[in-house]
Amino acid sequence: MAQMNSTVGDLWGNAEKISNFISRAKELQADLVTFPELVICGYPPEDLLLKSHFVRDNLKALNTVISSTKDITAVVGFVDKDEQGQIFNAAAIINNKELKGVYHKMELPNYGVFDEKRYFQRGKEFFLFKLGNVSFGVSICEDIWKDKGAANLEAESGAKLLINLSASPYHAGKRRVREKLLIKRAKETDSFICYTNLVGGQDELVFDGGSLVIDSEGEIIACGKQFQEDFVIADLDIDLILKSKPNFKRKAGVKSVISFPRNIAKKSTLAKEQSLKRLTPLEEIYSALVLGTRDYVSKNGFQKVVIGLSGGIDSSLTAVIACDALGKDNIIGVSMPSYYSSEATKSDTRILSENLGIRLIVIPINAIFKVYLMALEKEFAGLRRDVTEENLQARIRGNILMALSNKFGYLVLTTGNKSEISCGYCTLYGDMAGGFNILKDVPKTLVYKLSKFRNKKEGRELIPDSIIIREPSAELRPDQKDKDTLPPYSILDPILKSYIEENKSYEEIITEGKLDPDLTKKVIQMIDRNEYKRRQSCPGIKITPKAFGKDRRMPITNRYREF
Amino acid sequence: MAQMNSTVGDLWGNAEKISNFISRAKELQADLVTFPELVICGYPPEDLLLKSHFVRDNLKALNTVISSTKDITAVVGFVDKDEQGQIFNAAAIINNKELKGVYHKMELPNYGVFDEKRYFQRGKEFFLFKLGNVSFGVSICEDIWKDKGAANLEAESGAKLLINLSASPYHAGKRRVREKLLIKRAKETDSFICYTNLVGGQDELVFDGGSLVIDSEGEIIACGKQFQEDFVIADLDIDLILKSKPNFKRKAGVKSVISFPRNIAKKSTLAKEQSLKRLTPLEEIYSALVLGTRDYVSKNGFQKVVIGLSGGIDSSLTAVIACDALGKDNIIGVSMPSYYSSEATKSDTRILSENLGIRLIVIPINAIFKVYLMALEKEFAGLRRDVTEENLQARIRGNILMALSNKFGYLVLTTGNKSEISCGYCTLYGDMAGGFNILKDVPKTLVYKLSKFRNKKEGRELIPDSIIIREPSAELRPDQKDKDTLPPYSILDPILKSYIEENKSYEEIITEGKLDPDLTKKVIQMIDRNEYKRRQSCPGIKITPKAFGKDRRMPITNRYREF
Repeated sequence: MAQMNSTVGDLWGNAEKISNFISRAKELQADLVTFPELVICGYPPEDLLLKSHFVRDNLKALNTVISSTKDITAVVGFVDKDEQGQIFNAAAIINNKELKGVYHKMELPNYGVFDEKRYFQRGKEFFLFKLGNVSFGVSICEDIWKDKGAANLEAESGAKLLINLSASPYHAGKRRVREKLLIKRAKETDSFICYTNLVGGQDELVFDGGSLVIDSEGEIIACGKQFQEDFVIADLDIDLILKSKPNFKRKAGVKSVISFPRNIAKKSTLAKEQSLKRLTPLEEIYSALVLGTRDYVSKNGFQKVVIGLSGGIDSSLTAVIACDALGKDNIIGVSMPSYYSSEATKSDTRILSENLGIRLIVIPINAIFKVYLMALEKEFAGLRRDVTEENLQARIRGNILMALSNKFGYLVLTTGNKSEISCGYCTLYGDMAGGFNILKDVPKTLVYKLSKFRNKKEGRELIPDSIIIREPSAELRPDQKDKDTLPPYSILDPILKSYIEENKSYEEIITEGKLDPDLTKKVIQMIDRNEYKRRQSCPGIKITPKAFGKDRRMPITNRYREF
Repeated sequence: MAQMNSTVGDLWGNAEKISNFISRAKELQADLVTFPELVICGYPPEDLLLKSHFVRDNLKALNTVISSTKDITAVVGFVDKDEQGQIFNAAAIINNKELKGVYHKMELPNYGVFDEKRYFQRGKEFFLFKLGNVSFGVSICEDIWKDKGAANLEAESGAKLLINLSASPYHAGKRRVREKLLIKRAKETDSFICYTNLVGGQDELVFDGGSLVIDSEGEIIACGKQFQEDFVIADLDIDLILKSKPNFKRKAGVKSVISFPRNIAKKSTLAKEQSLKRLTPLEEIYSALVLGTRDYVSKNGFQKVVIGLSGGIDSSLTAVIACDALGKDNIIGVSMPSYYSSEATKSDTRILSENLGIRLIVIPINAIFKVYLMALEKEFAGLRRDVTEENLQARIRGNILMALSNKFGYLVLTTGNKSEISCGYCTLYGDMAGGFNILKDVPKTLVYKLSKFRNKKEGRELIPDSIIIREPSAELRPDQKDKDTLPPYSILDPILKSYIEENKSYEEIITEGKLDPDLTKKVIQMIDRNEYKRRQSCPGIKITPKAFGKDRRMPITNRYREF
């Protein structure tokens, strides 16, 4: 199984990578090599699929793969097109330079981040393939999640090996759900399952790999690495497979059986089962953030990133993750102190930068802030200071970061977390100004956990403890604290989860959480009122079952009120 | 037909409005009153539909409408829910306080701006309703666009009147397409069609009304106003309807016929056919922009807007449209001249403001620009001025507008046009900073046409001619002109249309347009590279077949290159 990191739109780059994996498989004397869903064009290609020349070029790229598939069988995800111009999320079954068959995905997900019914027609039939003596079936991602779906039908028709090509986006805990489902499927179908998942970051999504080979008793016999490209090798005991179901049952569902010979004579000796060691929950999330960052930055052609460092925990963790993703030499920290910045946060920023070994630029903003206030003096005459002046400071900082970005070609990483962004406790064009937001889907309580996890892994205070224990503050006015505006994060985060991820009502939230009604109302109002800010936010990495972005499509103009 | 402007989420406000229209219909002694698609919850409600309490509250709101429907028949769009919790885009057929039947939309659009398969299950059956002697069928929007769809089946089963509830978003020229389709449908089914369309703005969409009653010979016998709420009254000649198809054919498709009596005895005397006068193409687009602006501002609870006026045509037209939408007292113009602003543009800004009678604030930005340059001096030492310093000026202006917005609660209108936004000829957090972008989907060549159109309508130079004839410039460096960066708009705009709206390839564009290959390449590269900017842009009004936003979902990370 080639657990490959393909790039959306990079048809020729992806095709070349696929061909390289096929060569490696041949060297290992494998019978069969499988790839993720839509590996030729990357996933999800979104509206590129509406360009007929894109689909045409994807078919050309597939042809180069077919012509490089000598003396081996490969199953490769691509976009198919029929004579009416309708397109399908498809798998090519290739043997010895010939396209033996094409399977069209039957279950098209159209929820959450998925829009597959926007593009694809639904597949209507499945096939049995016979590689030597072994019958196998092919399905794509969602197909195997559906009870009594294509995989089950194929098994009932005699398939002993169920190949599934996937592009299953990560969220915390999803690996467990996926493994459970596939083990159940293997047992109920009495078949081996070979599940090849995509790996890599694509805009807001991270695909986590973790491909699996499961035997017909539900035992995992090989497992791909999480969050890394991998080549998963498994030697299936063909005699056992053949013995397990002596009676070939052919049912009405199968239109045709497509047979081709094994291309190798002798059994591979190199094949080795992979380690089944899995990441802990925090390691998993951390790895997703690192991979998502690395791929967004590199696939978009950037090398260096610039981060505004406030001495707070969000920007600190962002810098640490960026270092792990891109290397310390590619990170530029910028400290932009104002009247309201404490000595403690300024000193912590220096210590953090030294700990990470990154360059730190210091640009104070007082003079700029003052001249803005003078320019606005006449208009603001007689009015009290309010959130306007706070936002102004945040926007001056945003401008400075963008100026460095423009001048030197750095990508600006924003540092907001999910709790802030949910409540709108952030400034549009201020701290929200930038190209990518690592912590966009990470609630504040998890920011703390990840920071402690990373320090522990390092065996020292990479993020100074003083940052972790300091009471959160935006430092935009004297003695400001987050708690002046928001409830404590330990109370806020569960409310956000119930309201945003679980779509619970106000009544359910206060009842189940035994929460103060007024506090809960206030939080819900903040979430609802700040949809317009989120609409203008930059992308970030999905790590929960429901992130902002394509995952949650709320109208801005919305007068629904629950209370 | 109640051509109503409903507001997304405002269940109780919408229900009250519906009940008022029903009362009016009763006063007019109408037999039947119809409403747009999903009128109870507004369209499109997007992910509000994933909240089960939202669906429940919409059913409660429907119940209040049912109980107010005395002695009359009403057809009302709402969200239905079955026992499994699946939801449907539905129409309630209500007679004299009783829910007589419910129709579920069969064709769920899932392309362009539509995501209906994300939420709704497909309806499976249709009904015939008999109001007195007249059999009618009910369908919803897309249903009637489909050949041999629900409307046709209903007619074949004996319906003489086909009622369609719609929420059909506007783009230039759509009214004509819609009328043509409905006339064809009326003729082929030999039925009367009563097509009730939504009116109003919702985020990026404008619904244009223009509801229609068409007789069985394809003649339009009544027509709703465009871009305004309207109550369309038509007296159908029932004897003629009944005579037209003497043989009631009942086919297998119809599960049941639901009959109820007419609630009035005498024929209405008030009913009058509406004028069929239609807006010209430019009037139509201009009206869409005015309605979209008015509804976005008012439905989001704003009263006043602030606009940065540069003396250029985009900000001038934006100000004129805003005046027409909101009244001159609600518009604040801000002139923010720099070293590079010419006397001519500064003077034109003053003249425009006087012509419109709006308040003009002048806040020069030189001092602020200077202090930024000083703050960045060390980092930028030895480097030449480039786009960084240009963007900085635009961002200072963005900050000033946002400061006014924060302090006084104004909504900032951005002034970019589709040509600029396509090519990324605009500054993120600079001139792109704001809440709503009236011209987001208006190409520059159309900006000129609309400006001239509006001046002509006024009978004087509302927008000074000097603004219209001046060569476009961003005035961010000495002697800068748009043409230094972009091809002439008369060449650029057709390329943008081919590439963005029509998904044409580079090859097709140069061949069909007889265009310079290098110039075309440069334009395509600019469009592709600036996806990240558009992702952070504020909403604007869709007026073309493909606007940015939900209508065009391109990946940011995208390595597809055609050449």
